[in-house]
Amino acid sequence: MKQQPSHSATGFEPRNPGFEARVRSSFGRQPMMGHIGAELVVVQPGYCEIHMPYDKALTQQHGYMHGGALATIADSAAGYAAYSLMGAADSPLTVEYKLNLLRPGVGELFIAKGRVIKPGRTLTVVNADVYGVEGGEETLCLTSIQTLMTLADTADELRVGAG
Amino acid sequence: MKQQPSHSATGFEPRNPGFEARVRSSFGRQPMMGHIGAELVVVQPGYCEIHMPYDKALTQQHGYMHGGALATIADSAAGYAAYSLMGAADSPLTVEYKLNLLRPGVGELFIAKGRVIKPGRTLTVVNADVYGVEGGEETLCLTSIQTLMTLADTADELRVGAG
Amino acid sequence: MKQQPSHSATGFEPRNPGFEARVRSSFGRQPMMGHIGAELVVVQPGYCEIHMPYDKALTQQHGYMHGGALATIADSAAGYAAYSLMGAADSPLTVEYKLNLLRPGVGELFIAKGRVIKPGRTLTVVNADVYGVEGGEETLCLTSIQTLMTLADTADELRVGAG
Amino acid sequence: MKQQPSHSATGFEPRNPGFEARVRSSFGRQPMMGHIGAELVVVQPGYCEIHMPYDKALTQQHGYMHGGALATIADSAAGYAAYSLMGAADSPLTVEYKLNLLRPGVGELFIAKGRVIKPGRTLTVVNADVYGVEGGEETLCLTSIQTLMTLADTADELRVGAG
Repeated sequence: MKQQPSHSATGFEPRNPGFEARVRSSFGRQPMMGHIGAELVVVQPGYCEIHMPYDKALTQQHGYMHGGALATIADSAAGYAAYSLMGAADSPLTVEYKLNLLRPGVGELFIAKGRVIKPGRTLTVVNADVYGVEGGEETLCLTSIQTLMTLADTADELRVGAG
Repeated sequence: MKQQPSHSATGFEPRNPGFEARVRSSFGRQPMMGHIGAELVVVQPGYCEIHMPYDKALTQQHGYMHGGALATIADSAAGYAAYSLMGAADSPLTVEYKLNLLRPGVGELFIAKGRVIKPGRTLTVVNADVYGVEGGEETLCLTSIQTLMTLADTADELRVGAG
Repeated sequence: MKQQPSHSATGFEPRNPGFEARVRSSFGRQPMMGHIGAELVVVQPGYCEIHMPYDKALTQQHGYMHGGALATIADSAAGYAAYSLMGAADSPLTVEYKLNLLRPGVGELFIAKGRVIKPGRTLTVVNADVYGVEGGEETLCLTSIQTLMTLADTADELRVGAG
Repeated sequence: MKQQPSHSATGFEPRNPGFEARVRSSFGRQPMMGHIGAELVVVQPGYCEIHMPYDKALTQQHGYMHGGALATIADSAAGYAAYSLMGAADSPLTVEYKLNLLRPGVGELFIAKGRVIKPGRTLTVVNADVYGVEGGEETLCLTSIQTLMTLADTADELRVGAG
């Protein structure tokens, strides 16, 4: 199945021309993303898309994908959508989010789409939705609003366990 | 390190005397809990505690535990706190939650504590907090409010992939 | 200034053909709406728009409209968007909501737009945004996700103080 | 009826010794508080209590206090709990909140209690609950988590409409 970016023109101007490489590098340094089989598919200014195939290891007691797995890719998609608009010396921090689970996590693939609603110097507000995909059809199963903080002059790198 | 239940007397009366066995059985049927190393430690009427040791596989790019891992145990702790008060023929469904990440996920162990704020026939509202534990000291790193729905006359069992 | 409904075709089919009259009647019986000068402008299946002119009495200490006034029209717009899709014997109950205040409440008029994201037999999830209008231009100042419950076979009428 | 402060010792140390006078002055400059009959009753470091008597003008269609009125006092109680801990040159800004309406707004008096969960240099997270009081007994009807931002070197004063 071929997935096209949902928003090719996001209307945001990145402050860091190297935003995509930076987002991809950060994603690659998140062990949790590998642990749940998540892949970074689309990075655009103010937009990010993460895909995660169905995996029985990530299910709950009814056989659906666990809400926590869906929340995890929504969290990362929101964070990287925000990060894509930040300056070269900044890094993102998730402050809070709130989500509704609209339907069970049914599908062969799950796609989290993070879209910046309002960028800001200190805080960025992002909408992140997760869709279950079956037979090429996307069904919305999670919607969220997330708040990210810009850590100015802070590298997005290992801070603990670096020994 | 020895962890004592935080609330030995919750003040709630379970409608199903077999609530603990039922919660433990459901937890055991959640593959996601095993995948992140989570363990169900305390089940009381309206209260549930889940422990998850630090694991590099669950970290984000700074070396802290990923917010999604913390959210996942908060989600399950809230769900089982609610489930502990439901009738024998009912099962729980997470409707929505909202959380603040108060501090980075630092610690050797993470403890999610779900406490029912308001049980109801159709909806139950639960507070779930997650603490990082270092040297036996608990530090609050996530706080949340969660809404669960009671699915009446619905077994808490496999609904898909039962082949 | 002339405001056109933002969504003339919502894609939802009302179960109660008299939905608009019923929503307007309920709105008219909310003293709080009159107290803050709110007016019900658009009712469509799954969509509702409430307008509230700037009023110094509703401001906070910086002279902007109080977040609580904006939240109040968002709450009602979400509730009536949900109510518009309910059956003839049902009434709505707000379960919870979460909102971000994106910009100060600046404008001569404030418009809350409630749009159903996911209708359901028991629960309906709604997005409600509030815009400040200046010189005919709308600026998003509040975004929210709201959860409403359907009270089956329950009239939407006075329950207290009817003496 | 005599209301005692719920938390006489909050455990927080104010950075501005004149915090109470400053909070009371700001509250007094919020026209919205007068418009809904809200009164600032308790201000302690990291804690704030606002009272609002039942008023038919603030009710919804069932005769209960409108959720928006309860949310408004919760919003202000959270804001002032946060403000009480800020430095002398700072002022508060509400970023976002999320709330559950646990019971109908029934009572002769409504009390919002804001308690700081986690103060911070940039962001402060606050729990704000609202209780309905009948015959001297408090019943929890709204619980919320709120995020406030510190505006450094920004006076908490009129910014618009000062003509």
